[in-house]
Amino acid sequence: MKPRTQGFEFRVLCNDGHARAAVLTTPHGDVETPTFMPVGTQGSVKTLTADEVASTGARVVLGNTYHLWLRPGPDRIASFGGLHEFSRWPHVMLTDSGGFQAFSLSASGGKRAGATLKKLVAPSEEGFTFKSHLDGSARFLSPEIAVEVQSKIGADIQMQLDVCPPGDSPREVVERAVAQTTRWARRALATPRKDNQALFGIVQGATFGDLRRAHADELGALEFDGLALGGFSVGEPVENMHATLAEVAHHLDAERPRFLMGVGTPKDLLIAIGCGVDMFDCVLPTRNARNGQALTRFGRVVIKQARYADDRSPIDPSCSCFACAGGYSRAYLRHLFIAKEILVLRLLSLHNLHYYGEIVRGAREAISARRYEAYAANALNALASGGD
Amino acid sequence: MKPRTQGFEFRVLCNDGHARAAVLTTPHGDVETPTFMPVGTQGSVKTLTADEVASTGARVVLGNTYHLWLRPGPDRIASFGGLHEFSRWPHVMLTDSGGFQAFSLSASGGKRAGATLKKLVAPSEEGFTFKSHLDGSARFLSPEIAVEVQSKIGADIQMQLDVCPPGDSPREVVERAVAQTTRWARRALATPRKDNQALFGIVQGATFGDLRRAHADELGALEFDGLALGGFSVGEPVENMHATLAEVAHHLDAERPRFLMGVGTPKDLLIAIGCGVDMFDCVLPTRNARNGQALTRFGRVVIKQARYADDRSPIDPSCSCFACAGGYSRAYLRHLFIAKEILVLRLLSLHNLHYYGEIVRGAREAISARRYEAYAANALNALASGGD
Repeated sequence: MKPRTQGFEFRVLCNDGHARAAVLTTPHGDVETPTFMPVGTQGSVKTLTADEVASTGARVVLGNTYHLWLRPGPDRIASFGGLHEFSRWPHVMLTDSGGFQAFSLSASGGKRAGATLKKLVAPSEEGFTFKSHLDGSARFLSPEIAVEVQSKIGADIQMQLDVCPPGDSPREVVERAVAQTTRWARRALATPRKDNQALFGIVQGATFGDLRRAHADELGALEFDGLALGGFSVGEPVENMHATLAEVAHHLDAERPRFLMGVGTPKDLLIAIGCGVDMFDCVLPTRNARNGQALTRFGRVVIKQARYADDRSPIDPSCSCFACAGGYSRAYLRHLFIAKEILVLRLLSLHNLHYYGEIVRGAREAISARRYEAYAANALNALASGGD
Repeated sequence: MKPRTQGFEFRVLCNDGHARAAVLTTPHGDVETPTFMPVGTQGSVKTLTADEVASTGARVVLGNTYHLWLRPGPDRIASFGGLHEFSRWPHVMLTDSGGFQAFSLSASGGKRAGATLKKLVAPSEEGFTFKSHLDGSARFLSPEIAVEVQSKIGADIQMQLDVCPPGDSPREVVERAVAQTTRWARRALATPRKDNQALFGIVQGATFGDLRRAHADELGALEFDGLALGGFSVGEPVENMHATLAEVAHHLDAERPRFLMGVGTPKDLLIAIGCGVDMFDCVLPTRNARNGQALTRFGRVVIKQARYADDRSPIDPSCSCFACAGGYSRAYLRHLFIAKEILVLRLLSLHNLHYYGEIVRGAREAISARRYEAYAANALNALASGGD
């Protein structure tokens, strides 16, 4: 079914195996895929300005609806003309539904809907109540409210509210989550939203390949502008995720962008791109930066280690990021980290996002040259040499 | 007495009353004065890159010898070619002697010198022992060691070790501090340092104008490249500081730069420039930024206040700093501050240093046009209108 949203188009330029290079056109510009989308949880990609984020090649920032709903609030954001204007990000913006964090940070069970829920993975049919982790106030979230809140926040791309069971859930729990996610998908699509906001559906099914494929078909029959793979990296063994991606990702409608939510490591990206995934988001590069971990083609550099105290080389001598090209030595970065200087958090965040940008840029080039398999194998070998 | 250090020159271009516009030439470039020198305590002006610091007009960064001595250590810094190279600051660098912070953060009394000291303001003649606030290890600081450590750190401008009594000290304590500072001045000058490192003497005397003037004459007779006013903003009433500056600053040798250490507020700068001061350093603009205070021509903006929750204007609509010109609203900055997002600390730090840069740039222009008195009166009125 052809997506309906104004200003959006997805064109696959080249296929190489299941991998593909494409362009996602949006009201805030084109996005070359595969792409990595840095997370701006509270309206800021932590420590960085918009220019710096864009310098890493990123063109989409992901905002967390849960956080923005609680603070500064969707009405305030709307009064500023939306999150682009409010946060000064001129490129593409995507918001999640708020459900995942409402579950994980604050869910109180679906009392509002009259049910007593034993598991967070089984909210009531209507939706669920959660409590703000900031002030304990109760909020009700439903598929309709998720669209309404995201409409006010004003991102280019919305995500439907879904049901995301833990990675070790039994099949029957996953089946119920899948069925409810489909019902919520229809309700999300039936909720009015702005004409220039796309809506993506979320395929669940844990590591049950048959459930995933069936769900992809179900949601693919609906008027979504893109399809996401949710419910990965939620506790299942990483090998199971990789195996399921290989079975499922290429099964999602090839004419729409495929977004693997909340994933992952450089290795995960390289594998998932080969499976046919176009879009990724993850806090890993920015969170690890703030924990003092620089990610490189050859694995992680834990910058506080004593071995770097006199190390004159940059994080990665071949890297062109601001930190590496600017001549910041590992020794200086280590000094800053140990001295708790904020500058190092910026430099490592920039470096890590730049590295992620290089992974997807390189993948895109390799796909265009139809040598993705060799590119990924080479990159995975380099990572393995460093223990990653 | 003509300063001796290679690569240094100080040329007064214009006098306007006691105020003057000058150029300080150093091995790392020219510095137009009056100038404000941001503090880079641990080898980093907190939250900012070198480019950002320079964008505020600053050309000198002050490093704290106490902190750099303890971590990462002068030998390590020297092995990197000095603090410029280590911290990637291409312009002028100045280090203090380490004495002030060794006193205030960690002094343990001068046991090493065989004396039992009752007051920190009266270390032994030889020097004093302090304990690292990081690991409790004992270090000995003397006028000679201060020069040796600063030589390794490699800043363009060193400061002598001085004795800085509290602002409420009785005259006899201040007299002893002045006399000892002079003896330490001679020892500092007698200690070998690199040919391209200048050394400044420090005039003490609290708010006793006659002591200050006599000390300025004593130190002015020595081979210092510049003269500083220490021992201000150490507990004395601010009016007393202003009155003493008016009496003393212009008395310091007019052919050498005059540096008012650790001062101050925008008002302090405007008054002190009128008294003949050329150089300032203070943590106030960067520290207040990290506490959520934006400084403006019309007083302070405490960004967390609820009144700014929906305020669409930048901190100061007429300001050309990255934050103000970039369209970051007070509402967004408030949101970031309340959400503990690091980006706001950067934006406020940049804004505050830019504002300080504008104060001294405006002062310089006004002096060159011989209308400094009107410039300062106008600026002080605007500040007073905002309660500052």
